[in-house]
Amino acid sequence: MMKPLNRLNFSGGPGVLPESVLLQARESIIEVPEIGLSVLGISHRSDWFAAVVTELENNIRTLLGLSGDYHVLFLQGGATQQFSMIPMTLLRGKTHPADYLHTGYWSGKSLPEAQRQGPVRVLWSGQADGFRCLPRDEELPFSPDAPYLHYVSNETVEGLQFHRVPGRDDVPRVCDMSSDFLSKPCAAERFSLIYAHAQKNIGPAGVTVVLIRDEMLKDAPTDLPGFLDFRSHTQAHSNFNTPPVFAIYVVLLVTRWLINEIGGLARMDEINQNKAQLIYRLLDGSDGFYRGRAEPRDRSVMNAAFNLATPELDKLFIAEALAAGFSGLAGHRAIGGIRASIYNGLTLAAVEELAGFMEEFQRRQAR
Amino acid sequence: MMKPLNRLNFSGGPGVLPESVLLQARESIIEVPEIGLSVLGISHRSDWFAAVVTELENNIRTLLGLSGDYHVLFLQGGATQQFSMIPMTLLRGKTHPADYLHTGYWSGKSLPEAQRQGPVRVLWSGQADGFRCLPRDEELPFSPDAPYLHYVSNETVEGLQFHRVPGRDDVPRVCDMSSDFLSKPCAAERFSLIYAHAQKNIGPAGVTVVLIRDEMLKDAPTDLPGFLDFRSHTQAHSNFNTPPVFAIYVVLLVTRWLINEIGGLARMDEINQNKAQLIYRLLDGSDGFYRGRAEPRDRSVMNAAFNLATPELDKLFIAEALAAGFSGLAGHRAIGGIRASIYNGLTLAAVEELAGFMEEFQRRQAR
Repeated sequence: MMKPLNRLNFSGGPGVLPESVLLQARESIIEVPEIGLSVLGISHRSDWFAAVVTELENNIRTLLGLSGDYHVLFLQGGATQQFSMIPMTLLRGKTHPADYLHTGYWSGKSLPEAQRQGPVRVLWSGQADGFRCLPRDEELPFSPDAPYLHYVSNETVEGLQFHRVPGRDDVPRVCDMSSDFLSKPCAAERFSLIYAHAQKNIGPAGVTVVLIRDEMLKDAPTDLPGFLDFRSHTQAHSNFNTPPVFAIYVVLLVTRWLINEIGGLARMDEINQNKAQLIYRLLDGSDGFYRGRAEPRDRSVMNAAFNLATPELDKLFIAEALAAGFSGLAGHRAIGGIRASIYNGLTLAAVEELAGFMEEFQRRQAR
Repeated sequence: MMKPLNRLNFSGGPGVLPESVLLQARESIIEVPEIGLSVLGISHRSDWFAAVVTELENNIRTLLGLSGDYHVLFLQGGATQQFSMIPMTLLRGKTHPADYLHTGYWSGKSLPEAQRQGPVRVLWSGQADGFRCLPRDEELPFSPDAPYLHYVSNETVEGLQFHRVPGRDDVPRVCDMSSDFLSKPCAAERFSLIYAHAQKNIGPAGVTVVLIRDEMLKDAPTDLPGFLDFRSHTQAHSNFNTPPVFAIYVVLLVTRWLINEIGGLARMDEINQNKAQLIYRLLDGSDGFYRGRAEPRDRSVMNAAFNLATPELDKLFIAEALAAGFSGLAGHRAIGGIRASIYNGLTLAAVEELAGFMEEFQRRQAR
């Protein structure tokens, strides 16, 4: 049984991983079962590592029902590197601007990086309203001429999540799924490029998954630095330069867990929905003691952001929760408040314990 | 006692790590001693991780006797990213070319990336001679006007290592020390920029150490993507975007081992020299049965590359060595042959065992 501190880790990221994955990762530090060597000292050119990459790629294709038209890459640099690498590839030299949605902290980070590379149109911004909701379709006059539409499927800081796929089917969709990738089915084939760092739902910090349709690369500039050229990585099968072997191995373990222990993404989604509803029902039934940050229809299944009546009460809640064993509940430094991140690796039982603590905290405050 | 497979792992990289480091890394997967959480699920904005980065930076400064004029950064992307990031920072828009030494496989990889960013002069190339030696000082007409001199201190593929610091003291030296960083004292203050990925002597794949003099950044372009701008990383203290937490933690464990168990870099160098001399003496005393690849004066203390009389005999040697428990001895795919990589983590006892095997193999072949 996982120690309480890991079991009750509501960190916004890097997030908690499933217990069975942690146990296998631990053993691999001394000895990977198949070959008897430490995972930290295995050549990235070994047959073993080639098999890891192939199995991981196949697992992701299986989980998402993805066709062969997509490359599945494992890169470094996080979503931040993709904020630049994608417009370098798809936007340089273009006359029509790409459409970007500005829905929170992370999509906001992507904007200046894109603007350095080419023309960008911010189609909608929630900044003036403090990022408490997502746009409705009728607010979004998507351009048919945009090289692509870019948006962030789940804003971890504000706790906002798209529960539909916005955009036109005749304009390539590019989506930062860093904080909900493999937490649910995602209609992957409606996207031309999906990217996600691992450290929320699928692994440790240090590796980024990119799914990209082959046709997106046909007009890419040919003068990019090798490591920023997707073609270097597609040709080398994610082994252009030494990849982060351990992080990739742990992501493989998580995909095995999703397939064999959870039973696929539809089931993972059910579990995640149950966890989120438990918290949101508690917020809504608290007579305003707990105040959800996001508009109910745009609430994130991954990150429940909320406040109490005052910042002082927020702090007291976080401190008492920590003393009771719940870690990682402080809101993002950009906005404060409280945030319960309930990624794949966090169990329903852990959320039930948190809900129990929240009810008890409210009762104590009401006295 | 470390299992034989790890103990006898002569991999060219990622290389074997010290046993005590592996044991601590293993425990951290479930629980970091100081905080009781898995290292894979700890926020990179936590006090714990800030302390890890600070201690690691201080350990590197202590080991190298480095002053405060240098930033010590922990980045992603390996040496390959630095092949581009450095000339983006120091070479764009310059009229005088940077001087590059082309001494083997890895310095050869750095050339086209630099040439994309600005003017480059290849001051010397060992390519025509198959990279069997390094240049003498009299062959190197260093320019006083070069923005910098770039070279690779240890060519892992060919087994060549500089045993002096080339270049002019009035021209910034930029050095790829990926395969000998922290294996010996390196006169760090004679360099303006040192970079090294971790996966040879100091940690797992996924993190790159950069030491850079502050003055080198004063004229850097201001339109670089954030993650390629060294100033983003210096200002954020290596926490510009989510860093590879686990890899950085393991590098910290290795620096603690260097300081507390080994006793510093001078002692590490002694041990590494003893390991290398054991192999090179055996090659030289084998009556031509084992043929060292590099000119003796330029032999690497980290990678001993050699051949037997025929490629078939090379293959037989590698196969029999593997059967006897020695892994990672195949030469780099670019040149074949045999390579024994004897990084910090590999013990003298392991090299003695290899030497014993080599003598026995030679006796059997002579029958």
